[in-house]
Amino acid sequence: MTQRITVTTPRPGLHEITSEVSAVVRAAGARSGLCTVMIQHTSASLLIQENADPSARHDLERWLDRLVKEGDSLYTHTAEGPDDMPAHIKAALTATTLSIPILDGRLGLGTWQGLYIWEHRRRAGRRKLLVHVMPDSAA
Amino acid sequence: MTQRITVTTPRPGLHEITSEVSAVVRAAGARSGLCTVMIQHTSASLLIQENADPSARHDLERWLDRLVKEGDSLYTHTAEGPDDMPAHIKAALTATTLSIPILDGRLGLGTWQGLYIWEHRRRAGRRKLLVHVMPDSAA
Amino acid sequence: MTQRITVTTPRPGLHEITSEVSAVVRAAGARSGLCTVMIQHTSASLLIQENADPSARHDLERWLDRLVKEGDSLYTHTAEGPDDMPAHIKAALTATTLSIPILDGRLGLGTWQGLYIWEHRRRAGRRKLLVHVMPDSAA
Repeated sequence: MTQRITVTTPRPGLHEITSEVSAVVRAAGARSGLCTVMIQHTSASLLIQENADPSARHDLERWLDRLVKEGDSLYTHTAEGPDDMPAHIKAALTATTLSIPILDGRLGLGTWQGLYIWEHRRRAGRRKLLVHVMPDSAA
Repeated sequence: MTQRITVTTPRPGLHEITSEVSAVVRAAGARSGLCTVMIQHTSASLLIQENADPSARHDLERWLDRLVKEGDSLYTHTAEGPDDMPAHIKAALTATTLSIPILDGRLGLGTWQGLYIWEHRRRAGRRKLLVHVMPDSAA
Repeated sequence: MTQRITVTTPRPGLHEITSEVSAVVRAAGARSGLCTVMIQHTSASLLIQENADPSARHDLERWLDRLVKEGDSLYTHTAEGPDDMPAHIKAALTATTLSIPILDGRLGLGTWQGLYIWEHRRRAGRRKLLVHVMPDSAA
């Protein structure tokens, strides 16, 4: 069963989607199984990261901004704006699909893990995700 | 159901495999489900990236070549050639497995997404992939 | 079917878990299907890498240590020690979940591939993994 969901990302950086994806798992009614999330874009990506201290996410965003600079003279793909080519590179270095086991009807995330969209463009976006739920078959 | 496929990569960089993998999904006859692709090598990797403007892929390749240099004095693993250790690092920074929901009998890629092997070695290679198709069970 | 396993990582770097995960696949009795591994932490990650020459893994570890430095003046998240923020960044650049097809009752790894936990903290840790096994349904 695949559910399409759309998430608004008003600014660059990490946007938690744990509750949106959890709602799809609940609605599917699977007690155990596998949940796969895919982002249908190449200038935003997915990440499982610490959901406790926001400073960890903030440093992560700034570190990647420094590694993948805007205005790099290497870029030839510049027609879509200065943040477009860095966005593709950042997406390539992080995840486009993630698969998370379902236990007791819930995503099997660790205590401090949250599920995030990482928006790499400056412009507010509406990002499309596919959430696939595969229930374990009865033994 | 897992299908083994082999893809020839005549040079380093991104080689689109969307049609090869789509053919496996079609042959499996799954209308909905999950397709998982795995590359059985550690000096080439997988990527979902923009399939429209080739300049984006070109810049991506050059950016990673600059980040992960050949001839780095840090390397001790040099017996297999100057492009081998960079290849392992590039593979570690990108994907070895990807899982894509199947919708209406097709891979659920976004409008501008293509599926690629990223060849990190200079020598022409024959790369082995596993393509697993899991159909959704009838409700 | 999801099995929880715990792995001790006595020091930073790559720790092979191929045999631990293979044991779960064997115990589940699936001849063919899909095995998904997830690490329930954000300061350690997963990797499929070369299992032959240890020098390749050693160089990979050192390369990433140099890219993601301790003591970077950019970091504000420093309360949990100098290796904590680098650990989150390294985890973001590598994998948190991996899905591997099962063939003939075994993980479909390539000849030179091993499955690893990449421990990014200096302190010995006990890392929790989820191993989900989805058997192919009978045709």
